[in-house]
Amino acid sequence: MKKEPLQLLPAEEASLRLDKVSSQLKASGTEAMLAGDNATLYYLTGRVFAGYAYITDAGEATFFIRRPVELEGDNVVYIHKPEHIPDHLTAMPKSIALELDITPYSAIGRLQAIFPEAKMVNASPMLQAARATKTAFEIEKIRQSGIRQERVYRLIPKLYRPGMTDLELQVEIERASRLEGCLGQFRISGTSMELYMANLLVGDNADNPTPYDFAMGGAGLDPSLPVGCNGTEIRPGESVMADVNGNYTGYMTDMTRTFALGELSPIAMKAHQCSIDICRELSAMARPGTPAKALYVKAEEMAKEAGLHEYFMGHRQKAGFVGHGLGIEINEHPVIAPRSRDIIAEGNVFALEPKFVIPGTGAVGIENTYCVGADKTECLTNAPEPIIYFD
Amino acid sequence: MKKEPLQLLPAEEASLRLDKVSSQLKASGTEAMLAGDNATLYYLTGRVFAGYAYITDAGEATFFIRRPVELEGDNVVYIHKPEHIPDHLTAMPKSIALELDITPYSAIGRLQAIFPEAKMVNASPMLQAARATKTAFEIEKIRQSGIRQERVYRLIPKLYRPGMTDLELQVEIERASRLEGCLGQFRISGTSMELYMANLLVGDNADNPTPYDFAMGGAGLDPSLPVGCNGTEIRPGESVMADVNGNYTGYMTDMTRTFALGELSPIAMKAHQCSIDICRELSAMARPGTPAKALYVKAEEMAKEAGLHEYFMGHRQKAGFVGHGLGIEINEHPVIAPRSRDIIAEGNVFALEPKFVIPGTGAVGIENTYCVGADKTECLTNAPEPIIYFD
Repeated sequence: MKKEPLQLLPAEEASLRLDKVSSQLKASGTEAMLAGDNATLYYLTGRVFAGYAYITDAGEATFFIRRPVELEGDNVVYIHKPEHIPDHLTAMPKSIALELDITPYSAIGRLQAIFPEAKMVNASPMLQAARATKTAFEIEKIRQSGIRQERVYRLIPKLYRPGMTDLELQVEIERASRLEGCLGQFRISGTSMELYMANLLVGDNADNPTPYDFAMGGAGLDPSLPVGCNGTEIRPGESVMADVNGNYTGYMTDMTRTFALGELSPIAMKAHQCSIDICRELSAMARPGTPAKALYVKAEEMAKEAGLHEYFMGHRQKAGFVGHGLGIEINEHPVIAPRSRDIIAEGNVFALEPKFVIPGTGAVGIENTYCVGADKTECLTNAPEPIIYFD
Repeated sequence: MKKEPLQLLPAEEASLRLDKVSSQLKASGTEAMLAGDNATLYYLTGRVFAGYAYITDAGEATFFIRRPVELEGDNVVYIHKPEHIPDHLTAMPKSIALELDITPYSAIGRLQAIFPEAKMVNASPMLQAARATKTAFEIEKIRQSGIRQERVYRLIPKLYRPGMTDLELQVEIERASRLEGCLGQFRISGTSMELYMANLLVGDNADNPTPYDFAMGGAGLDPSLPVGCNGTEIRPGESVMADVNGNYTGYMTDMTRTFALGELSPIAMKAHQCSIDICRELSAMARPGTPAKALYVKAEEMAKEAGLHEYFMGHRQKAGFVGHGLGIEINEHPVIAPRSRDIIAEGNVFALEPKFVIPGTGAVGIENTYCVGADKTECLTNAPEPIIYFD
């Protein structure tokens, strides 16, 4: 059988990403990092494998692989278990960064025992920081997801049939997304958030609170997955908010649009326009150096000025943010929230989702994904923003 | 707004499950458990919430909730952060079980600091053991998933259209599953395994190794999710193996069937029959007291006797098991593997998936979900087992 290269990124791109990670090690005075999270390995190699990347502060990487079989490349070592890693190191590090925020306690204990003399450091903030400013290669992947996601959003009005429930419409959107090439997988850092493909919210179901840290709620179809559509029939005067998976390339865009069957209440129309205005204002403000929390404050201020504060980011239950970084995962940095310490930087990619839940109408507003470029902050999700009416 | 009860399980059922968990505490001499995993909370209450269950060895439970708002019930306490939990305890435990195998290291550190005097114990094996023997209520949920999953499998031949790719067929199966009520969410303990709804393998794509611990492989559509269909057109003489999500009730069944467009090679036909024979033999053997590893040994023996060992559980890359417990998650106990320490017990629910990958043909074999009852071990996934031919 022909072997395949482990490394799927162009050499320059792989080297750029490795430099970003090893710079974090250097800055923190840590000698090495051992990382095994799927998202981290995908970031470093362009593929997911079962194993570990061992990275030194000098910018050298060794890849220890358990599965799949038959990969090859520089510094590729097959191992059965992580205890064999030291056999392949020229020196044992005095300090080692591990992904403490996402790796289970027991797994960290096992890795720590492999480096009993080393000081353990948290790799998670380093990797978050490295990944928060995207490379040109990454931004292009995200842009391509946005283009394909936009195609699906433009199809949504054609997928509606009179009498449909939220689930029936969502299933047709799922199908259209998959045929357009959506990978389906919705990568989320951590284990607490769960969602299947899309969050379609019709009418007052949008006001059902969920346990998850998503911006919007919904009762869901079953208490084992309490988010999103709950079988509500789409009726005149109620809003249909579609927040659908935009993972077409391993890098996601996040976009929400609001649809309706007939006119919505004046306050819902006003809130929808306020959401569009907030997106405009915040994306113009979001230039390198802007504190992320200033964006949140501005959004909240605009909602208050419009007399819509009661409905801003939810009604019975409110989300504590108005935007979030994204890329390989849906919850990256910067976080656009009141107590965020993130400062907007060139290369940041984030979604803004100033949404409103109006009792009796449902959720309104939009969400777009933006990229902070050298000259401007650009929108990567360009489906029409006004409320779109089903015929 | 009307408040909702936290507890969605019938009182007797909730009490039965709580007893199973507190018995584990008692047996290990641990005073209390603090658990916050979605699957654990769903097990204890029939719903997912953001927060923690605090359980004592005396069988008392307190539920500390962060989200969603507006739940009520006995021993329901709203908190903003886990540090407030001790304010609501009558005494601090001398030993505390935490979910060490699945909770991130940093999160455990935070919980441990709340109980600085307590000895920390691993709750994960206790919860695994409690959940491995299902209650009658749970088995009924699984049975209902099996009935609905069977309906979808019977539709698959009608979904095939000449010229379809694996992805196109998978998308139609996804749609049919969702319209039948499949929740989509595929709950997996841990963070290393990822899959979107289904694994449809056509021809030699089945021999592409993946990084994940699934029984079968596939290159996937993109290296960011390297499993399952890869855009292969379905051609005569190649097998189509469908392993599709069976989560209709919060409790899953797992079923695989093999389809084909025209005759398969004699060796593939033989291997498919061998898979059916192994399922028959192992399910008859799987009575209370049987070591799980004995089932694996028997399966391997049967594959060898049939001269099919080279293709058993994969060809270029082999899976290290022939079955797995399931319920709320797809990877529960018992594990049917060579070094498993599990002993089959009444109430176990597990899938058997003796599969073969035949180069030039693809994957063949079946998978069924079985329940170990008092009198017999029963199959809960009853779609026809022989190879099903597309017209």
